[in-house]
Amino acid sequence: MSITLAELGETKLLERLARFAPPGQFSDDTALLTHDSRALLVNTDVMVEGVHFSDATTAPADVGWRAVVANLSDLAASGSVQVEGITVGLVAPGTTPWWWVEELYQGISEALERFGGTLLGGDCSTGNQRLLSISAFGRLGPLRLHRALARPGDLLMSSGPHGLSRLGLAILQDTPRPSPLSLPPALKEQAIRCHQRPWPRFDALQTLLACKPEQLPWRAGGTDSSDGLLAAVESLCRSSGCGAVLHRDALPRADAWPYEEAWDRWCLNGGEDFELVLSLPPEWAESWTLHQPESRCFGTITTDKGRIIWNDDGALLQPSGFSHYS
Amino acid sequence: MSITLAELGETKLLERLARFAPPGQFSDDTALLTHDSRALLVNTDVMVEGVHFSDATTAPADVGWRAVVANLSDLAASGSVQVEGITVGLVAPGTTPWWWVEELYQGISEALERFGGTLLGGDCSTGNQRLLSISAFGRLGPLRLHRALARPGDLLMSSGPHGLSRLGLAILQDTPRPSPLSLPPALKEQAIRCHQRPWPRFDALQTLLACKPEQLPWRAGGTDSSDGLLAAVESLCRSSGCGAVLHRDALPRADAWPYEEAWDRWCLNGGEDFELVLSLPPEWAESWTLHQPESRCFGTITTDKGRIIWNDDGALLQPSGFSHYS
Repeated sequence: MSITLAELGETKLLERLARFAPPGQFSDDTALLTHDSRALLVNTDVMVEGVHFSDATTAPADVGWRAVVANLSDLAASGSVQVEGITVGLVAPGTTPWWWVEELYQGISEALERFGGTLLGGDCSTGNQRLLSISAFGRLGPLRLHRALARPGDLLMSSGPHGLSRLGLAILQDTPRPSPLSLPPALKEQAIRCHQRPWPRFDALQTLLACKPEQLPWRAGGTDSSDGLLAAVESLCRSSGCGAVLHRDALPRADAWPYEEAWDRWCLNGGEDFELVLSLPPEWAESWTLHQPESRCFGTITTDKGRIIWNDDGALLQPSGFSHYS
Repeated sequence: MSITLAELGETKLLERLARFAPPGQFSDDTALLTHDSRALLVNTDVMVEGVHFSDATTAPADVGWRAVVANLSDLAASGSVQVEGITVGLVAPGTTPWWWVEELYQGISEALERFGGTLLGGDCSTGNQRLLSISAFGRLGPLRLHRALARPGDLLMSSGPHGLSRLGLAILQDTPRPSPLSLPPALKEQAIRCHQRPWPRFDALQTLLACKPEQLPWRAGGTDSSDGLLAAVESLCRSSGCGAVLHRDALPRADAWPYEEAWDRWCLNGGEDFELVLSLPPEWAESWTLHQPESRCFGTITTDKGRIIWNDDGALLQPSGFSHYS
């Protein structure tokens, strides 16, 4: 029998969790973030079992990896070029086996090793439901990407394809897809990988920073597509007081992604894609397309506040309706 | 009928929560913490309904206040002299009425107005159980108080009395006290106030900084007594590799607190006192007693690693056994 959290107790649990942090890091009440003068960004995200992840489809190491990536993706989409670290609030029932928590923190550590930063501290408590609340800290680079910085005339850009994570989930859960097409194995594998081990797009941010046309100021709108592509466009438009036209033919589909309306809905609303969704001046967008080949231009920002329409028939896109409460 | 979170949906919920933050603060994925060069401390604490608070005894505004204070108390006990702000991860079932969340955030705002800092951002999600995960950020002053910096020969000091919050809870819940003594009304009122509206001891930290004897280095051990006085001493001893002798007559009791062994146990293990528990060189301890009249010396730090004993009979104090999992 594996030892449970109730059997370990809080002190021993924290001692075991401390092994995932630098030596001495857990021996105090707070963590020292920094002595240095570069601007620091913070992001807090909550992941709840049964809402954001399920024990049935997601191994605990993948839960840990994805929880870190969800946070780091927000940092990347705000212009952070270096990860300082994270704090983790862990809630789990006393009956939770230790191995589950250990594998969770192994996934957390793997993500930090891959993308930078350390486990700075945190807290744990018993509760009815397993959940993680992570705060992540990153250093700002030369560009403060911001949801409120989209401007009419900008092009809407994406760092990669959308809908893959949703497809990966359907494959893992063996639930229906938008249509019963047979899919190439490479697309299925890509979809499962995107669902289980997403990446924050620090790489795409770096090419964006490197390719800015000199005459342009450091101004761009940006967010990530953790809640889906359409939700990302909606949030850019809402924060910036703009509208958008989406180009149906140019939606950021994966290679071999079916061209059907039902599949377009997964591309728009699948969620958990963790790509950068940017609003860029046309010259910068063009330059980024050259330096970041998998980036896509899929629309334009307009003055038509709050309205997101299709380019071909002018039809209004239905709100994504993304909500953990629905 | 009050509107519920499920009826509001996530976007409208976040819009309402944004009213508690500076204008525009919630319009982006991350929060900019700082452009400036002074060292920054971070602390993350989780508060779960049924574990850390109960709807029956605690009004939502008091839950919000106490959640902030629990975090700020850790910052104070690490030497933070200025609060930058907090992020809040909120989990609540969709059936939760909005008024409950609104009053919660009013309590959060009241605490921030009183002790400094702003609501920097956060996240919200549905879940089975109401809970708050707060990360708080503060600027370090000249002294980095640390649990690992107690040294043999230091005096154990407390910024105030202990056990009051536990007594306040018993009065509010109408549950038995250690003995059926009748208590003066002033003590009862003080106890309820300590339970409902505790204060982080930034004031006591300021006097500590101001009264350091010049010849001493900036070195002191410190933590807060959120998990109880004995748990605070244990954590100082554990992180510093020391032991301690506690002076039974000098326990930091409130005025009119009964001198009985059963009441001593509440003083030692009541919890949620949010006082500073410090390990100070004798000259500094003496100076602090002069400048901070309600501070108390209640013991000494020894070389006797991990052993905490009474001064009069040398008996070993039982571990506090503090654990949310027990």
